Amino acid sequence: MILKYRNSLVLIVFFLSLCTESTLAQKATWIWYPGDFEIWLGNRMQNRRTERGSFLPPFWKMDSHYVLIDFHKDFELSEAEVAELYVEGQYNVKIDGKSLFGYPDKISIPAGKHRISLKVFCQNNVPAIFVRGKKVISDSSWLVTFEDKEWIDQSGKASDQSGTSWLNAAAWNFDSPSSPPSAFKLAVKPQAAVKTERSGQSLMVDFGKETFGFLKLQGLKGKGTLGIYYGESREEALDTARCETLDKLHIGFDKKKDTIHTLTRAFRYVNIQMDPGMSLDSVSMLYEYLPVEDKGNFRCSDEEINRIYEVSKYTFHLNTREFFIDGIKRDRWIWSGDAYQSYLMNYYLLFDSASVTRTLLALRGKDPVTSHVNTIMDYTFYWFMGIHDYYEYTGDKTFIRQFYPRMKSLMDYCLARRNKDGMMEGMAGDWVFIDWADGLSKQGELSFEQLLLARSLETMATSAAIANDKVNAAHYNLLASELKKNIFGKYWNTDKQALVHSYVNGQQTNNVTRYANMFGIFFNYFNDTQKLAVKKHVLLNPSVQKITTPYMRFYELEALCAMGEQPYVLKEIKDYWGGMLKLGATSFWEEFDPGKKGTEHLAMYGRPFGKSLCHAWGASPIYLLGKYFLGVKPTSPGYGTYLAEPELAGLDWMEGTVPTPHGSVKLYCSKTEIRISGTEGTGTLRIKSKTKPLCKGAKIKALENHVFEIQIIRGGTHTIQYNL
Amino acid sequence: MILKYRNSLVLIVFFLSLCTESTLAQKATWIWYPGDFEIWLGNRMQNRRTERGSFLPPFWKMDSHYVLIDFHKDFELSEAEVAELYVEGQYNVKIDGKSLFGYPDKISIPAGKHRISLKVFCQNNVPAIFVRGKKVISDSSWLVTFEDKEWIDQSGKASDQSGTSWLNAAAWNFDSPSSPPSAFKLAVKPQAAVKTERSGQSLMVDFGKETFGFLKLQGLKGKGTLGIYYGESREEALDTARCETLDKLHIGFDKKKDTIHTLTRAFRYVNIQMDPGMSLDSVSMLYEYLPVEDKGNFRCSDEEINRIYEVSKYTFHLNTREFFIDGIKRDRWIWSGDAYQSYLMNYYLLFDSASVTRTLLALRGKDPVTSHVNTIMDYTFYWFMGIHDYYEYTGDKTFIRQFYPRMKSLMDYCLARRNKDGMMEGMAGDWVFIDWADGLSKQGELSFEQLLLARSLETMATSAAIANDKVNAAHYNLLASELKKNIFGKYWNTDKQALVHSYVNGQQTNNVTRYANMFGIFFNYFNDTQKLAVKKHVLLNPSVQKITTPYMRFYELEALCAMGEQPYVLKEIKDYWGGMLKLGATSFWEEFDPGKKGTEHLAMYGRPFGKSLCHAWGASPIYLLGKYFLGVKPTSPGYGTYLAEPELAGLDWMEGTVPTPHGSVKLYCSKTEIRISGTEGTGTLRIKSKTKPLCKGAKIKALENHVFEIQIIRGGTHTIQYNL
Repeated sequence: MILKYRNSLVLIVFFLSLCTESTLAQKATWIWYPGDFEIWLGNRMQNRRTERGSFLPPFWKMDSHYVLIDFHKDFELSEAEVAELYVEGQYNVKIDGKSLFGYPDKISIPAGKHRISLKVFCQNNVPAIFVRGKKVISDSSWLVTFEDKEWIDQSGKASDQSGTSWLNAAAWNFDSPSSPPSAFKLAVKPQAAVKTERSGQSLMVDFGKETFGFLKLQGLKGKGTLGIYYGESREEALDTARCETLDKLHIGFDKKKDTIHTLTRAFRYVNIQMDPGMSLDSVSMLYEYLPVEDKGNFRCSDEEINRIYEVSKYTFHLNTREFFIDGIKRDRWIWSGDAYQSYLMNYYLLFDSASVTRTLLALRGKDPVTSHVNTIMDYTFYWFMGIHDYYEYTGDKTFIRQFYPRMKSLMDYCLARRNKDGMMEGMAGDWVFIDWADGLSKQGELSFEQLLLARSLETMATSAAIANDKVNAAHYNLLASELKKNIFGKYWNTDKQALVHSYVNGQQTNNVTRYANMFGIFFNYFNDTQKLAVKKHVLLNPSVQKITTPYMRFYELEALCAMGEQPYVLKEIKDYWGGMLKLGATSFWEEFDPGKKGTEHLAMYGRPFGKSLCHAWGASPIYLLGKYFLGVKPTSPGYGTYLAEPELAGLDWMEGTVPTPHGSVKLYCSKTEIRISGTEGTGTLRIKSKTKPLCKGAKIKALENHVFEIQIIRGGTHTIQYNL
Repeated sequence: MILKYRNSLVLIVFFLSLCTESTLAQKATWIWYPGDFEIWLGNRMQNRRTERGSFLPPFWKMDSHYVLIDFHKDFELSEAEVAELYVEGQYNVKIDGKSLFGYPDKISIPAGKHRISLKVFCQNNVPAIFVRGKKVISDSSWLVTFEDKEWIDQSGKASDQSGTSWLNAAAWNFDSPSSPPSAFKLAVKPQAAVKTERSGQSLMVDFGKETFGFLKLQGLKGKGTLGIYYGESREEALDTARCETLDKLHIGFDKKKDTIHTLTRAFRYVNIQMDPGMSLDSVSMLYEYLPVEDKGNFRCSDEEINRIYEVSKYTFHLNTREFFIDGIKRDRWIWSGDAYQSYLMNYYLLFDSASVTRTLLALRGKDPVTSHVNTIMDYTFYWFMGIHDYYEYTGDKTFIRQFYPRMKSLMDYCLARRNKDGMMEGMAGDWVFIDWADGLSKQGELSFEQLLLARSLETMATSAAIANDKVNAAHYNLLASELKKNIFGKYWNTDKQALVHSYVNGQQTNNVTRYANMFGIFFNYFNDTQKLAVKKHVLLNPSVQKITTPYMRFYELEALCAMGEQPYVLKEIKDYWGGMLKLGATSFWEEFDPGKKGTEHLAMYGRPFGKSLCHAWGASPIYLLGKYFLGVKPTSPGYGTYLAEPELAGLDWMEGTVPTPHGSVKLYCSKTEIRISGTEGTGTLRIKSKTKPLCKGAKIKALENHVFEIQIIRGGTHTIQYNL
């Protein structure tokens, strides 16, 4: 009944969203040059970090928006109309190439065919326009240029005779003239503390769980300094000399006043220390968040898993902000490797494509490329892989077409940094990361980095084809297949039945690590024999160095799932994530080593509270449960076709929703019954059943080993009786 | 007497400037990342153009400053000190890598060796710092980076192990903490009108000569619209429907008020039209200017030439502003071809190197290069030639070293756009300009463009050597010599005894124009026979299409001077520039065709007042008189050695000063006596004399044809008796 109810709700939502779509087509919105708002907002976001009161900006090149942008669109009007103009910047307006006087806020356009052009200069913010007439409205069908005058058009860009590249304008959700992009703010809502302890001039405030936002001090009075020491743990808030974030307020209030801190902070506990004579009534906060809907869901018969799923969701929401960030306490930066996992989780919870593209664009910045993304070699490759998946899940070709030139220049940068053997090897200025792991060698040519490059080259091949750059599509395909051949030639060790970690001074090293081997599995680079060997000799081999970050646990468990080891993975999830919950976690951590004790869990980077206790990469159960337990994933771009391959893995039942670009797949699965419905695309349900499943009105195809496939008809609900 | 007096004055100024130099070494100044202030200011300056009340921005890519900059310097202090900090942007401060709390405005540095670092984020303005302690002061000895992480250091850049390029910080003259770069403004002084005519609700105000600044309306009262129509000519101001610039003021003043217009305008006449009921007491202005000293001078026995020189100076000053701009009425943009001539004039009047480098940097912008400078092929080459001359006149290697990467990437852009025969030919998006001239063909491979490329390649060869990029120095030298060989193979026509204009469809065209031929002369690309032939068959041949812009007259007259035709050139200057003066010019024009009549002189670009009557390129007599009449020019970079080769060209006497990097050369010359002194470098005076010249205590060397050379001793004054 619950599922049925939900189903009809989804249908209503779906129809509503269809209506919205058609209204949207006639709805004005703020528009700008693609990628520029993202870069501008990225600068703001990433320059908010402080460490113990000192501003701590990123250590890589930050780019800027183009300051001068030309916008235009051709309209054919059956009758004359008046359009209002709102502009961020200094501008001119032309109708059919003829300038209007001054800075008009309204224009009259006669009936007939007309070109409306605006040219906008804005140094501080992103040049942006909002045009609202009857038919003359600003949306992403407008064309924009920064007047590049580039004459080569091998990328499929719309170019005019002057050599100018015209792209489709970018837009997000700035649909009101009074809310321009420069005024962007996340939403806030008041949140009360759950407990406040007082002791002399000190207050210890507990918000009950990890949270994020603006601290509010109510009824503050007196003269002097007020120290605010934040803690993700109580220990951190108490340790005023070593907590990671703190603020100091110097005030002189004769009367009681409320203050709201101007910078957001992450905390559960807040320790307030006031000078003598100062007083404070209470402490609360404004919780800050990106208003974005949970389109995906997962529930099952195991309450611990359900709790893990809920805390994963909360962790993910806290880290889904202006961009997908790493963690809310410390960096609050956009790290490509961290973001990559958020993209994947997103496809199973929010399906908020705008958050993916915002993050990709902010990470990429602009040409010229002068370093790897975030200065990290692997993070450059995750950027490409993010586009690979984005296309697979959304089918959005426009994004790829518009940003193909930036993809190409970043790949040019990588290719120019290969060594004489065509392999990526760390050079001066490169950070080769892989994972936080003791003693992990970064020397020489690492198999892991070559694997990521190979997948990036495959992404480039697909993207070049979409951008109509046939020559380079072939070129990238060739490079990818040659590289894959070389990877196996260089790193596959038949004794060890695995890819070794590295190749140093012309020699294969002895070391086997999990990294390249697990990626090789879900990249599908191994043959079946190799896969089984790798599973045995690496993944399930306790003598291979263990992974202690949820970051790499993500891929390790994904590889195991891809090998059908869901029961094992379910146990691992319960142990590892359940382990954090048992220690009182209210959000998932940057790193968790079950072997550690007490406050050891709080330390990292040689600092007692260096570890983030709310890290995006801790939320991966969202992805694993959606993709490998509900088992739903696209098999062609944008869920044109998809597969649902539920794996109960010992659970009695599970149910959930996996969002798709314009709808969802809903699934309930027990050991005897499956109910499934999909609102778009052509789905295939693949299940094991001892006996032939029953499903009214559906085609059932029997494969080997008791596997059956049932076609899911768009819009319908299928109920299948089977026998696991 | 006058000269003697001047001499001692110059010496005093010179000693004063030496004192200032040594004080400067301990004087704090605002510093920033090289080139960034220039780009930021260029955006401001070039986005102020309006045409008949509509904003008219440039039509090429505008770049931005880097928003996040790291500054540092290592100090060794004998005693502890406190330094004040002033910062434009959000920042942190580190001493020896350790962050200080918050945003300190004072820091204490202990005695000993210490590294002071500041990292600054600023989106709206250029990140900039001002540090003032006893020894810890901000100046261009600090190092800066935008964290490029570029690992290649073939350009001689200081790079650290992380692959970061560190450049010397840039500074100009922001020597007070309260005058940061973002607050930059030109100077202003009040200027009264010379005549005001009233008629009903109209005023026609005459400022007596071309001027520039903020219009001030005194005692304005009433409600309604006030139209301001500016005119460089009376006709333009009166023609409210077609004047190039106008403003409208909508006011409602109960009491008399003064208003100052927020945008600067160029005008001599201002026509004010008020709605009924409005009143205005008077109109004046704030003249806006760059405070920069005339270090050069020229006077002679011909009063018309003196008047031409004075009006040239005024014209040049009006166009020497934030940057060297084209003209003050219309574009007010930085055009590389126009600026190139200003650089040259500058070396004979202001010797203000900061204006040259500001202009070069704003023109260049940043990578990636997506079009020619100002979108014009020839203007890219003038940019390189500007650096060629800058080095020749100033000897400044730091500028070349710091910006060599930007020179290289711009040259890469050019070289990638050569056709299959290695020649530059206009492609989509390229504007091939040369000159405003009727029917001038831009088709095919133009000899003029190849000549400019050759000189640009020579500049790259010199600059690569300075930047320690030996491989490319050799490469550019080879390219330049090959190109020069090809130019003569392709364009030299033995029948015509000249370079032809172009090569189209594999064929030399018939057309001979002046452009390539005159550049060939002063580039010294012809042999002596060719030079004489070109002079006869092109320069002095009236059947070759005449030049009507002072822009190309500049080079034509320079070529004739370089051939020793000063008497002819003097006559041409009197005819051409004197011709404008006879028509009442108070500044020199964008174009002058003596054949035109009345208001025809005001029209251009198909608009009745389209022509600029105050155009930088109109001021070239400054350069011609200094370089080819006083005859002073460097023969090694920065006046290490120089030549003075005075040419009276029929004048009874002339006298003047030519500035050098840190001093000047002063010269008086009649037909029987020369007095010369130089404050730096080793000079050679070369004169013709029927008899051996007399000069007490100087070495005199006799050459062929009654030519004598006399060595000028630094600091001394030489008086030479001779017999022209």
